[in-house]
Amino acid sequence: MTHYQINERDMMFNLKECPGLQALADTDGYEDTSEETLDLIFEQAKKFATEVLAEHFVVGDRQGCELVDGEVKLPEGFDNVWEQYAETGMVGINADAEFGGANLPHFFSSPVAEMECGSNVSFSMLPLLTRGAARLIYTFGTQELKEKYLENMYSGEWSGTMCLTEPGAGSDVGAGLTKAVPEGDHFKISGTKIFITWGDHELTKNIVHLVLARTPDAPPGSKGLSLFVVPKYLTDDEGNVIRSNDVTCGNIEHKMGIKASPTCVINFGTDDDCIGWLIGEPNKGMSQMFQMMNDARLEVGIQGMAQASAAYLSALGYAKERAQGSIRTAEGARPAKIIEHPDVRRMLLRMRAIVEASRAMIYHMSLYMDLAHHGKGDRERYRALSELLTPVVKSYGSDQGFRVTEMAIQTYGGYGFCQEYPVEQYMRDIKIASIYEGTNGIQALDLVFRKILMNKGAHLKVWLGDVAALCGELKGTRLEAQADALGKAAQTAAAVATKFGEWAATGKAEAVQYRATDFQEHLGHVMGGYFLLRQAQYAAKCLEGQPSPADQHFYEQKIVTTDYFIGDQVVQSVSALQHLMQVPFPGTDVSFD
Amino acid sequence: MTHYQINERDMMFNLKECPGLQALADTDGYEDTSEETLDLIFEQAKKFATEVLAEHFVVGDRQGCELVDGEVKLPEGFDNVWEQYAETGMVGINADAEFGGANLPHFFSSPVAEMECGSNVSFSMLPLLTRGAARLIYTFGTQELKEKYLENMYSGEWSGTMCLTEPGAGSDVGAGLTKAVPEGDHFKISGTKIFITWGDHELTKNIVHLVLARTPDAPPGSKGLSLFVVPKYLTDDEGNVIRSNDVTCGNIEHKMGIKASPTCVINFGTDDDCIGWLIGEPNKGMSQMFQMMNDARLEVGIQGMAQASAAYLSALGYAKERAQGSIRTAEGARPAKIIEHPDVRRMLLRMRAIVEASRAMIYHMSLYMDLAHHGKGDRERYRALSELLTPVVKSYGSDQGFRVTEMAIQTYGGYGFCQEYPVEQYMRDIKIASIYEGTNGIQALDLVFRKILMNKGAHLKVWLGDVAALCGELKGTRLEAQADALGKAAQTAAAVATKFGEWAATGKAEAVQYRATDFQEHLGHVMGGYFLLRQAQYAAKCLEGQPSPADQHFYEQKIVTTDYFIGDQVVQSVSALQHLMQVPFPGTDVSFD
Repeated sequence: MTHYQINERDMMFNLKECPGLQALADTDGYEDTSEETLDLIFEQAKKFATEVLAEHFVVGDRQGCELVDGEVKLPEGFDNVWEQYAETGMVGINADAEFGGANLPHFFSSPVAEMECGSNVSFSMLPLLTRGAARLIYTFGTQELKEKYLENMYSGEWSGTMCLTEPGAGSDVGAGLTKAVPEGDHFKISGTKIFITWGDHELTKNIVHLVLARTPDAPPGSKGLSLFVVPKYLTDDEGNVIRSNDVTCGNIEHKMGIKASPTCVINFGTDDDCIGWLIGEPNKGMSQMFQMMNDARLEVGIQGMAQASAAYLSALGYAKERAQGSIRTAEGARPAKIIEHPDVRRMLLRMRAIVEASRAMIYHMSLYMDLAHHGKGDRERYRALSELLTPVVKSYGSDQGFRVTEMAIQTYGGYGFCQEYPVEQYMRDIKIASIYEGTNGIQALDLVFRKILMNKGAHLKVWLGDVAALCGELKGTRLEAQADALGKAAQTAAAVATKFGEWAATGKAEAVQYRATDFQEHLGHVMGGYFLLRQAQYAAKCLEGQPSPADQHFYEQKIVTTDYFIGDQVVQSVSALQHLMQVPFPGTDVSFD
Repeated sequence: MTHYQINERDMMFNLKECPGLQALADTDGYEDTSEETLDLIFEQAKKFATEVLAEHFVVGDRQGCELVDGEVKLPEGFDNVWEQYAETGMVGINADAEFGGANLPHFFSSPVAEMECGSNVSFSMLPLLTRGAARLIYTFGTQELKEKYLENMYSGEWSGTMCLTEPGAGSDVGAGLTKAVPEGDHFKISGTKIFITWGDHELTKNIVHLVLARTPDAPPGSKGLSLFVVPKYLTDDEGNVIRSNDVTCGNIEHKMGIKASPTCVINFGTDDDCIGWLIGEPNKGMSQMFQMMNDARLEVGIQGMAQASAAYLSALGYAKERAQGSIRTAEGARPAKIIEHPDVRRMLLRMRAIVEASRAMIYHMSLYMDLAHHGKGDRERYRALSELLTPVVKSYGSDQGFRVTEMAIQTYGGYGFCQEYPVEQYMRDIKIASIYEGTNGIQALDLVFRKILMNKGAHLKVWLGDVAALCGELKGTRLEAQADALGKAAQTAAAVATKFGEWAATGKAEAVQYRATDFQEHLGHVMGGYFLLRQAQYAAKCLEGQPSPADQHFYEQKIVTTDYFIGDQVVQSVSALQHLMQVPFPGTDVSFD
């Protein structure tokens, strides 16, 4: 038995019983949106995650990565894992069939990602980055570049990276100094990138780096960055290696978690012998990257939710088995399992609610992305919802997922702190999700300024309309009270957004920046409550049929979870949101000198 | 330069400018309560912590402990650290002079503990446990036992442990199975204890285990446990080893943090050759242990606060130095340090406020303990306050301290996740503080049932009286608004306690248990606000004099911190406390099947 368990019942409810799959029938352009294909993909991913990936969870952490004589040494067995993974064809799960992809919707790939991230998040970063790099080439590259790279990447022969960050620049990508000097049909590349995930390794025959660099005449800042494809090895038309491209790994980071994922310093052109090819137009590198971010941020949200789900299930299993203390009864006291103690039940219920709210939010966002790409209906509407949800999903999944791992450790007690059980590693692995792919503070600025204020709340209004519609549908039903509470919460969030707009328009943008992170957290709870309530609505409908006893239990508990989450978390978020409007920015009297 | 920094200004404000030191003048029984002695002790501890202990912070974590051929192998240099530590005489800082102790108040030892825990919490556990074990022998042992053990322990020749937990028992100490069979003047001991901190090592010539065990005729449960002193080696009257006492280390835990502190499985009497001596009366082991718990729980609160303070100062230093992004000005944009970004300032202010509130609470509790022991005034009053504060200090220090380390990592960004900087280790080290010495869930039950409901709120009323007095004093001053907000918060907390009493009296004790942890958290914020407000009161008084510019800045910032903490955290806790009364226990409809 491996450490990793999935909540297949809840995943299937999300995928098949809520109306997601039906909605996909109304799309045009996917290879296949049938339930049979979903089942096939799901079973394959489940088997791979619970057997192969989960078996390398502990060894990956304990052995970690090392740089030996300039080469990255990975934990035992990872070469074999990648080989098996590549065979499943999952690298190209969303990619165009023309280049060997499976061209399936996000709604199909999100549960696959959940299982990959939950069982071995370190490993999951390798296909994630490969997909991201390939998709940039696909979207902006010439036909020649596509033919040269994509099939090799989707087959898993080659992998990919994203090279944004530079020493001393961090989140301020526009301050990057890496150079690209034109030379015939290509450019000479020189510079150093840091924090490059899976930046170097021997698992694949080539590594395709997507590098932001600056041409000699480029304007300063982020508007002067262009995007280049820079392979580790130069190859001929058949993909055979001609020579090394002067791309070397200078160092790897020693981290608190995701230790099996090598985080590299990559040097380009140390010997002035590194070349790359421009992708798309010059000076468009940042905007090209931005177009990829929805996918990556969705995936980081999935990482958080997936590890949280695994940690919760692990803690739940322990709480059911571990005997401790006693429960008073009419006849005296009898021995108890720790799950019988109210404080433990409180933690378990809170964990469960956060995980289910996050999963509902994430699977819905995946569907919205699919409908925005290939829907036959109002694509703009789904684009608006996806864009609004992107920073929320990324930050909520990671921050609340972290909270769940913390409660899982607390549920275990002393053993939660010991490496004998998996929960301490979940906590260490998950922490980075709040930081990379844009810190959650940066997500909050994106949410408030770009996703809300810049379009005068238009995206938010789409979502508020959805909330109002749901509340209308639930009038007179058993869920009316929950709908009322949710409606009030959504209105309060909207009022905060309006207040932020007023502040921003009257020279108090700093106050908005100061409050953005707290707003994002509580909007996340409210949105989580909304998606849970939609699920409770489906559950209530299913209960009207003649469900099996097991199904009946599941549907009833979905309503219990929703009731708890709205009554406890969402209601408290209303106070918190109201508070955000009342208390001014502490302002200039704070000094850290 | 080492990783460790202290906030000496704030510590000195707590110790010397707030009226703690004056209050100690009104005690009888301490060796010395003079400012000169405080300074001497402080300087010695500061030098030791920032130089010796801090230098072993990283090596202790990276090397950790190993069990090799039945012997615990410690990280490099720890033998030398202990030798130097023992020479400072700090093991016996609070102990009776008759046995070589310094007999100084907790108000003096708490800042010493802060610096030991902040610079190397793994190491700090060794003197902590030694003190606890020695104090049990001192309080309940015969003169013969005292003479045999105490001087050797306070000098650091021998160390001590507390052996409570057993496999399968965990927090339910009363389920322990370790046996003690009478044999002449002593008992044959046999059984296994787990999670024994510094349970085995070669730093001292002997290890004195304080062991809970059950005599053959003892009643079941915790009322049948007796306390025994069981040394690793049997010694003659001069303390020379005669023979091994059949006490062996069976295993050590591999943990996410405090890796330099060996957490041992200890086997007693594997070869039926282990003896121990009863301490005090039989079957009183649990109540004897309970009398030691205030000290140990205070210390765990200090661990949390101390590591949080260190993490905050580390993040603050980084935020001041690290350039990133830009700030818009009238003339355009200029490069910025990350401390200039509002979201970073939010995190720094929140961290600072939690640390200062925790420190104020903890140093006050130390003083209350001193006044309860040796005060000339109303000792009962201070005993009541200390007892009420004990679970709050333990849980608040550890849980909120953990939050601070989390924000410190977030402030660092990607580097916070890397072992190049100390903050990730602080987070790993601090997590255990919410678990050991009674999980924070157990603290909450202690707070609500033992410290509040059992005495019908008498202890709480003492504290509410203090709050009312402070609010009265602040009428008409610049702090009146903050006092009003605090008074309202304290009243809300009292209303929750009343509601809990009603629930408990009407068969709804489970609802109280369910809500106890959230109550504890928010009472902690309100109490933190109270102690900060007292400090703001002193700061405001100091501002009326003619302080130096540096002092003036400190006093003003103390008021800013208080203003922020009450306006943001305490006010939000009022909503949360009100919420606790409104929402019923989710109850029997929740199922985890």
